[in-house]
Amino acid sequence: MPTHDEVDYVSGRTRVFGIVGHPIEQVRSPEMFTAEFRRRGRDAILVPLHVLPDDFDAVLPQLLKMHNLGGLVFTIPYKARACALAEVLGTQAQVVGAINALVKGADGRWQAEIFDGLGCVEAFRRRAIPFFAKRVMLLGAGGAGSAIAVAVAHECPASLRIYDVDAGRATALAATVARANPGVAVTAGAATTTDVDILLNASPVGMLGDARLPLRVDQLPRELVVFDAIVKPERTPLLALAEVCGCTTVQGREMMRGQISRMVDFFLA
Amino acid sequence: MPTHDEVDYVSGRTRVFGIVGHPIEQVRSPEMFTAEFRRRGRDAILVPLHVLPDDFDAVLPQLLKMHNLGGLVFTIPYKARACALAEVLGTQAQVVGAINALVKGADGRWQAEIFDGLGCVEAFRRRAIPFFAKRVMLLGAGGAGSAIAVAVAHECPASLRIYDVDAGRATALAATVARANPGVAVTAGAATTTDVDILLNASPVGMLGDARLPLRVDQLPRELVVFDAIVKPERTPLLALAEVCGCTTVQGREMMRGQISRMVDFFLA
Repeated sequence: MPTHDEVDYVSGRTRVFGIVGHPIEQVRSPEMFTAEFRRRGRDAILVPLHVLPDDFDAVLPQLLKMHNLGGLVFTIPYKARACALAEVLGTQAQVVGAINALVKGADGRWQAEIFDGLGCVEAFRRRAIPFFAKRVMLLGAGGAGSAIAVAVAHECPASLRIYDVDAGRATALAATVARANPGVAVTAGAATTTDVDILLNASPVGMLGDARLPLRVDQLPRELVVFDAIVKPERTPLLALAEVCGCTTVQGREMMRGQISRMVDFFLA
Repeated sequence: MPTHDEVDYVSGRTRVFGIVGHPIEQVRSPEMFTAEFRRRGRDAILVPLHVLPDDFDAVLPQLLKMHNLGGLVFTIPYKARACALAEVLGTQAQVVGAINALVKGADGRWQAEIFDGLGCVEAFRRRAIPFFAKRVMLLGAGGAGSAIAVAVAHECPASLRIYDVDAGRATALAATVARANPGVAVTAGAATTTDVDILLNASPVGMLGDARLPLRVDQLPRELVVFDAIVKPERTPLLALAEVCGCTTVQGREMMRGQISRMVDFFLA
């Protein structure tokens, strides 16, 4: 029975989760994960944990000893570095070489996976838009792009073409994903909307303060499904153009919701 | 602007405080400190941090490197052990040899103090009952009793008499407190209500599951002010008897509120 001098959302029994990053002020995980825990009736909270790069290797192993720690989310710049903390790496994390969730399994071992790409797949699943047998064009082969490529390839599209301003990075990612998914035609190449069913933007172009489009086009085919991983602004320049052209659009926020849902499944399993 | 899939009480900008103890489920600090932060308009939260005794010495120094950590509260069994983390020990902590609050000062050094006793003094101050020139009888010379003795002696009572089932412990505490407060008559001796203005119980007798009174009496002078440090039950056997006898009573919960207020001052200074 909370009184006026007590809050009702944290107590000694609350299970504590954290998001580890640098910087930390801009992360949205605390408010979103905590809401998802509540929605599922769990007494749990996710708090920001600001760890400086020089401290990461010493702090994290000790932090994991906290007995009521439910799990950790990792964000920039720690997704690759955090792999060293995992005793069991998920299939996506193995290919991407990065993690964003770490949890202690029933066997007492620390299990990790990356859900960036799974969040994109989940967003499409919720919209009932399958990747299966589709021709997919992915813009961006960085952290988010890599995870999306791995997760989308797993859904057996007809083809997956990857573009990046750094052509070598696109080629390397295509080779890695092709190796893990022998049945999918994965290639690196120029950005195009010709012979493409689904266009995925995972490049930073179009974020706040950068209004350039990731494609030099002023027209998109109306059959195209257009997704942008960028969360802010919700209506990115690419999505705005897609709407004008009559395309179906999927927002970065939908990917974030899908990802949180899958990560909370992972945390509470 | 929180939406249905976001909570409004934690974000990337929230300053994180913790209470470190073992066990941790029973602590009340998370809900009470967090409410006090909110009351003062601060974006801060206090979460339970369950550290096992074997891990304490390795975990705590690393935990202090967390860049958005506002401060720590220490509870059983770590109040004495946590002294090693402090670079500057408050005057009460020096005498008691224990701390329950640690915060990084403006000079970057970790400052610590114990507020158990100050909370008792604050509770009396809020009731406008001064200790100055009063004859005080304290029951219990353990952790809470020590802190209360130190804080009360600092208020210049006429006398402070200390009883403990362990007579040696009472004698040692009386000597320590007398040394720090040359103007106060501090003695160890049997529990009594004769020639006493204020009776303070800081012994565990009277907690849930132990209904024995800390005094073998069935009558208390109605001029006596009676305080019990025990929080649960709020109406302890001692306070129940005091009420029947017409005494003024001060509850453990009032000490807890007073303590939280003083500790939040310390954290936000």
